[in-house]
Amino acid sequence: MRAQADRRRRLMDVHGGPAWLCAGAPVGRNYPGNPYPYRASSHFLYFVGAALPGASLLLEGGEATLFVPPEAPDDALWHGPSPSLGELGERLGLKVRPATELSLPGRVATLPAPDLATRLAQSERLGRALGGPADDALADAVIGLRLRHDDAAVEELRAAAEATVAAHRAGMAATRPGVAEAVVRAAMERELLARDMTTAYGSIVSVRGEVLHNPRHDGVAREGDLLLADVGAETRGGWAGDVTRTWPVSGRFSTSQRELYEVVLAAQRAAIANCRPGVRYREVHWRACEVLAGGLVDLGILRGDPCELVADGVHALFFPHGVGHLLGLDVHDMEDLGDRAGYAPGRARSTQFGLSYLRLDRDLQPGMAVTIEPGFYQVPAILDDPKRRALAKGRVDFERLRAFADVRGIRIEDDVLVTEGEPEVLTEALGKDVTRVEAMVGLR
Amino acid sequence: MRAQADRRRRLMDVHGGPAWLCAGAPVGRNYPGNPYPYRASSHFLYFVGAALPGASLLLEGGEATLFVPPEAPDDALWHGPSPSLGELGERLGLKVRPATELSLPGRVATLPAPDLATRLAQSERLGRALGGPADDALADAVIGLRLRHDDAAVEELRAAAEATVAAHRAGMAATRPGVAEAVVRAAMERELLARDMTTAYGSIVSVRGEVLHNPRHDGVAREGDLLLADVGAETRGGWAGDVTRTWPVSGRFSTSQRELYEVVLAAQRAAIANCRPGVRYREVHWRACEVLAGGLVDLGILRGDPCELVADGVHALFFPHGVGHLLGLDVHDMEDLGDRAGYAPGRARSTQFGLSYLRLDRDLQPGMAVTIEPGFYQVPAILDDPKRRALAKGRVDFERLRAFADVRGIRIEDDVLVTEGEPEVLTEALGKDVTRVEAMVGLR
Repeated sequence: MRAQADRRRRLMDVHGGPAWLCAGAPVGRNYPGNPYPYRASSHFLYFVGAALPGASLLLEGGEATLFVPPEAPDDALWHGPSPSLGELGERLGLKVRPATELSLPGRVATLPAPDLATRLAQSERLGRALGGPADDALADAVIGLRLRHDDAAVEELRAAAEATVAAHRAGMAATRPGVAEAVVRAAMERELLARDMTTAYGSIVSVRGEVLHNPRHDGVAREGDLLLADVGAETRGGWAGDVTRTWPVSGRFSTSQRELYEVVLAAQRAAIANCRPGVRYREVHWRACEVLAGGLVDLGILRGDPCELVADGVHALFFPHGVGHLLGLDVHDMEDLGDRAGYAPGRARSTQFGLSYLRLDRDLQPGMAVTIEPGFYQVPAILDDPKRRALAKGRVDFERLRAFADVRGIRIEDDVLVTEGEPEVLTEALGKDVTRVEAMVGLR
Repeated sequence: MRAQADRRRRLMDVHGGPAWLCAGAPVGRNYPGNPYPYRASSHFLYFVGAALPGASLLLEGGEATLFVPPEAPDDALWHGPSPSLGELGERLGLKVRPATELSLPGRVATLPAPDLATRLAQSERLGRALGGPADDALADAVIGLRLRHDDAAVEELRAAAEATVAAHRAGMAATRPGVAEAVVRAAMERELLARDMTTAYGSIVSVRGEVLHNPRHDGVAREGDLLLADVGAETRGGWAGDVTRTWPVSGRFSTSQRELYEVVLAAQRAAIANCRPGVRYREVHWRACEVLAGGLVDLGILRGDPCELVADGVHALFFPHGVGHLLGLDVHDMEDLGDRAGYAPGRARSTQFGLSYLRLDRDLQPGMAVTIEPGFYQVPAILDDPKRRALAKGRVDFERLRAFADVRGIRIEDDVLVTEGEPEVLTEALGKDVTRVEAMVGLR
């Protein structure tokens, strides 16, 4: 718990005023007594290192105090013995007091908890709406810390990456023609559960790769299909992995599938190579777009100069989302704070189709972790939309595109740690070459 | 969707006034864009048969109308194409209108949605707090229907039972000395995921069976331990299974473990045999308690007359919870409505230790589904508590109890459908005899 103590000290160095961070409360699923698995606020986890329902951390005058709710009378029976305040304090390296003793100093800043009940309680306790100037200042201080991962954070990200890699291997091994998507997903998530981890986000495991956030797993993977799996582990400490692979159900890419896969892979590799200190992340995105557009020109799907095609947003007909995002305690790290985390001060989202979905536009620094996840999709809602097609001004060869009808969606995503030197791909061990992927499918 | 249409008609027959049932909204996990897997309100699922975030059902003047929120502009890109209102209406056998057209009639009754945001919106829309007399009348009408399962419901409960049985088989097969609890849990939940189902509640898979609602799976199962697994499937339609088994990690019960297991099993069998129309569920509970107390007397752990021991609550030192609960779309069916569902009018919870946790006290009727789940536990919070020990008035032989130190907790739970004739154990296929259980452990 030394890392958390360091983080608290660093936050107090940067942020002068008092700060109050709430873990949040469990949230009922179908009824209050049947809650979803509890997930504490990422800010709380970052500075405390334990998921304690209803607890809060107060930083004031250079001192950190954790306030924990009283045990319910039957807690020991239903949930087992709890540590005493003293034991908890020793374990966490913190002063621990009962929540009844919490007294908030004037002008204390806070960040909103994940659950609405706690947010309402925060607001009531403070006697004001959340999100004023003091809260913004605290958010900026926290963002400043969480953007660059310390050693303890990197260790957690490596553990998440290891489990995520294992899940993808298991998913490929479980794939064969006729397999249910649900069976592949089950094989993948089992790897996470067996490590006492969970998923960092809702798994996507689908032959309909063109549906970007597809929550369904009720299809069957058939000979000739590509299966797209976007699955990531969350460690017990709350840190995320986020990896996508796309593999042929039969264990062999068709020529058209392989050609497009290679284009996406080249775009991904080029983007990763650009993940260096000082590089603006939007440029990493552009780089992926340009390589992708160049590849599509080579395949005869697009016509024209790749840079011009990208400047006009034509590539976004096939790659409509951003190339990646921050990764940390959240899979989209600190997205609870909005673009304040992902966008450097003075920068804002573009309104251009495609670029508008870019979640990150900061200059990269050592210690930042990002995903790199370009893709190629044939989305009917885009390609059948006359307004979107008009974007292309005749530079898409829709006739030629038919030769690639067996590709609905391809995405290749890895987790990348920016360092002083070469970018480090945390999920490198999984591999992604065509031959490597083919070899992993169906336990060949 | 004929079952749902029948249910709506029956509700309108019983409940004269207008009724408004909300599906509820997705709930953010660590941040709003990363929601927990969506679970619609069980009442909504019961009458509509589909999980539609943000939708609501209005029953008024003999007519049912479903109101659905408008598509967000980018929904087709991120979440795939949605059916039109007409297509949705055809699929569900309902009139479907956009939510913007919803106009609530005066004195409309409602039931609270599972998520706080929707509950607040309901209250705001109605201009009153939830839970007044009109809402209570609607709750009673819904309870009247949901208490006795129709054919479609029983079919769903059978599917949940089938998957739940498979999960327990997989858990036993994955068990061997040295296995992590998390690995066993992973093997069990994989069976559910592979069927595109989920868990109906947080799985308990622990060698610390005496912690009744143990959310942790971070232990290791060792030679000599008993492993307690309380895991149940939820079908895609939302219906629950709920089964507990307790098995020896080594594949062989010790003599002391077997003796106590047989006592719990006898109590469970006696309770199940009593699940007949007209029997008051509290009597089923008492029956389990008496058989359990009798068995503990035979083993020399308790002294005295079993019926007296139970009347005085001495058995509750080792079996502190209720023998079961309603089962349906919720694992504790309709617990969102409080004891209004579980307790017949005029009945209320006892204040006696143990009996106070009984969740159900109705006269059983054909079509009701209940769990039967007696147990034996050595809970330090109970047995080390002088106040609780005083309950026994010398009738516990704590010296003799030491011979059973290798039993921390045993629970045996099945899902039982009350019929006109013999009670039907929906989870019968799993088996629970000592020899059967031993044969299933570690793939022997």
